[in-house]
Amino acid sequence: MYLYAIIPRLSTADVIRRFLSAFLVAYSLLEKGELIVIEIISEGGITSAVGFTAGSTYAGLKTEAGVPDLGIVLSDRPANSAATFTTNSIESPSVTASRERKTAVTSRGIVANSGCANCSVGPQGLTDAEELASLAGTHTGVSGKDLYVASTGMIGVELPMALIRQNITNIVLSDEGGTDFAKSIMTTDSKHKERAVSFKHDGKTVTLGGSAKGVGMIHPNMATMLCFITTDADVDAKFLQEALSEAVSLSFNMIDVDGDQSTNDSVIVLANGASGTAQIDADSEGSDNFVEALRYVCTELAKELARDGEGAQRLIEVIVEGAHTTEDAQKAAREIASSSLVKAMVHGKDPNWGRLVMALGKSSIPLKEGEIDIFISDIHIVHEGIAIPYLKDAVVSAMNSEQVDFRISLNVGECSATAWGCDLTEEYVIFNSAYST
Amino acid sequence: MYLYAIIPRLSTADVIRRFLSAFLVAYSLLEKGELIVIEIISEGGITSAVGFTAGSTYAGLKTEAGVPDLGIVLSDRPANSAATFTTNSIESPSVTASRERKTAVTSRGIVANSGCANCSVGPQGLTDAEELASLAGTHTGVSGKDLYVASTGMIGVELPMALIRQNITNIVLSDEGGTDFAKSIMTTDSKHKERAVSFKHDGKTVTLGGSAKGVGMIHPNMATMLCFITTDADVDAKFLQEALSEAVSLSFNMIDVDGDQSTNDSVIVLANGASGTAQIDADSEGSDNFVEALRYVCTELAKELARDGEGAQRLIEVIVEGAHTTEDAQKAAREIASSSLVKAMVHGKDPNWGRLVMALGKSSIPLKEGEIDIFISDIHIVHEGIAIPYLKDAVVSAMNSEQVDFRISLNVGECSATAWGCDLTEEYVIFNSAYST
Repeated sequence: MYLYAIIPRLSTADVIRRFLSAFLVAYSLLEKGELIVIEIISEGGITSAVGFTAGSTYAGLKTEAGVPDLGIVLSDRPANSAATFTTNSIESPSVTASRERKTAVTSRGIVANSGCANCSVGPQGLTDAEELASLAGTHTGVSGKDLYVASTGMIGVELPMALIRQNITNIVLSDEGGTDFAKSIMTTDSKHKERAVSFKHDGKTVTLGGSAKGVGMIHPNMATMLCFITTDADVDAKFLQEALSEAVSLSFNMIDVDGDQSTNDSVIVLANGASGTAQIDADSEGSDNFVEALRYVCTELAKELARDGEGAQRLIEVIVEGAHTTEDAQKAAREIASSSLVKAMVHGKDPNWGRLVMALGKSSIPLKEGEIDIFISDIHIVHEGIAIPYLKDAVVSAMNSEQVDFRISLNVGECSATAWGCDLTEEYVIFNSAYST
Repeated sequence: MYLYAIIPRLSTADVIRRFLSAFLVAYSLLEKGELIVIEIISEGGITSAVGFTAGSTYAGLKTEAGVPDLGIVLSDRPANSAATFTTNSIESPSVTASRERKTAVTSRGIVANSGCANCSVGPQGLTDAEELASLAGTHTGVSGKDLYVASTGMIGVELPMALIRQNITNIVLSDEGGTDFAKSIMTTDSKHKERAVSFKHDGKTVTLGGSAKGVGMIHPNMATMLCFITTDADVDAKFLQEALSEAVSLSFNMIDVDGDQSTNDSVIVLANGASGTAQIDADSEGSDNFVEALRYVCTELAKELARDGEGAQRLIEVIVEGAHTTEDAQKAAREIASSSLVKAMVHGKDPNWGRLVMALGKSSIPLKEGEIDIFISDIHIVHEGIAIPYLKDAVVSAMNSEQVDFRISLNVGECSATAWGCDLTEEYVIFNSAYST
């Protein structure tokens, strides 16, 4: 199945309206060989790309026995790597160790644990992160310095190294181990999250896949979670970092669950070149395909994180269009997706659009109140800054679905951005009132 | 009752420890005539100061019949005025009208309504705000241009001017009408909020009192609510604005209920000089007393707003000390008081201090992780960045009270700040899921 790879910025009704013209454009681009086509691999993940294996085990870090909590991803050869990390000024020593590894450019893989953030534990944290990498390296036959380290879970608790030493050797790596790995990084996630795509490059099929975990302490500003991506494309390291940074800014930096930002957030991508194609860099033909594939996987995983936000029942998609700059549009979209009152009104299926206006204004971007149009799940609610008559029941009914769309047209410029959030529910409060106890 | 007017920056245990030395300092200052002494007036409010009357009526703006929703405060003579308004880039035309009045420096009073924010209603909003002022002026015998206007309630709904025209004449002003007025500005507040103090100036007693309302869309960055303050002191207009801006930055800008920021927030102070004392300006002897009185009333009302946050059961006080700059301390204290995860953990009486560290780091202020000490309601939890053994039950028990204190010592500088928040409860979500419907 080949898809016209527009990352979904359009609402359902728009898609129907624009389908014919999109088809014609796509056809003409395809004729000219300029169309970006990526194939979604059903049930694909971090081991979909050639040359990557993964696996996990239960080491005893999580309280629930038998649930995987320690995982490894390995490339069979050195892979160019790129990464982005939390901007929280308190960071886990696991992040510190990964930052150091990023400077080496190439990497052989990742070792990750859940159940313990390895954060705020003093100098022991870095000692433990290094030992964790070293143990994983010994088990897989590579240097610990060639493995990224990632930890997620409770802050303020040391890694139980005795348990890790004893159990890490139980990890069996396989090229079908992607899902096992994806499960081992879950914390409060209700399900594991994987996505993979392939596209043609240099006449061959190239694959890119990833897994991610959320789902609390989720807020824009790199990165709010863990995400690992592998590809068998051969990608220039500098270009890889640029493409990742851009993809993260459009995906993980545009989601919000609770406005909080973790000390452990990391997005790491490994490109091992096992597909045997020519190297992709900024100037190479078809680099757009890679950029689009990376962006697609990041965006879909980011939406999965928002959809699975703690206690969430609905995904919120906020499109701000007609802004002066993309930065303005991003700022406003994030502000709306992050608002507690907006999240609560989505939970209540309440078209209380004044809260959208409040959050929009709070972003302090330049706007003209008399130019603003607002659509809730494609129903026109506000025109030129004033409420227009609409059937409230129709809006309530439209909001009673798994996804609620807010589209705000500022009508002062040409730039747009999309952000995602989730509704705020009683379950979020109940859940987070008793996480450690 | 005379009080040593330290605005409470100290925790209970500290107070006990420092009481003796404070007493000695106070005594020596009193001897030298340098002690700031303010008297708290029990049940005082906006009509405690001489020359101010107030009243309210039910005009039909609120859905619950008979509850006051339209109020007036009047000075019997022109009063110097100062004000701060919302920084939300979408603002109510009622705020726009008040901004214009602020330029006139002197004012005769305030007309305020609840039940309707008069916001996002197009040009009609300013027309209605002006008519509201004009009607109030006609009823009280002053010019509408001499009355500030304030509105609070639903966004996107026009003021029902027919109801206001019909009912505004029912307002009876009296020097005991402060509480009636305070009730007329309530929206989701569970109780009205008033505070008044007096102090000596120029050998006479001067009084300052105010009322405020919250309690949703409450977040730092001026102003998040309505607050009106009156005083019979004669205060230089420029000095009045400086003192107000500083008091607001230490009080209303340091509280958070839900991270959202209203389109209608206003703090207005009127100083009519009816006490007959010499004018207070920056250089006059005893101006410290006025500054302290204003700060006290603002801080106490701000804490009342946080305590009465929608669904809240506990007040959170966050003290950040030992920062490089006051701005750093404020930023960190506000970030912690605003964190959903911190609010939820207070609701659950859960000493999950990793969330304090997360929120502290999210503020991005300069700090040294290995220097941080953390106290929860005076129990030492973290020393030099690492958890120290503590009896968890003791902390849970300490958190099971009406106020929970977090004190974070950064130990890198000499500056400190205090912020206030409230816990996040299921009731907040239930309440805000169905506010307009």
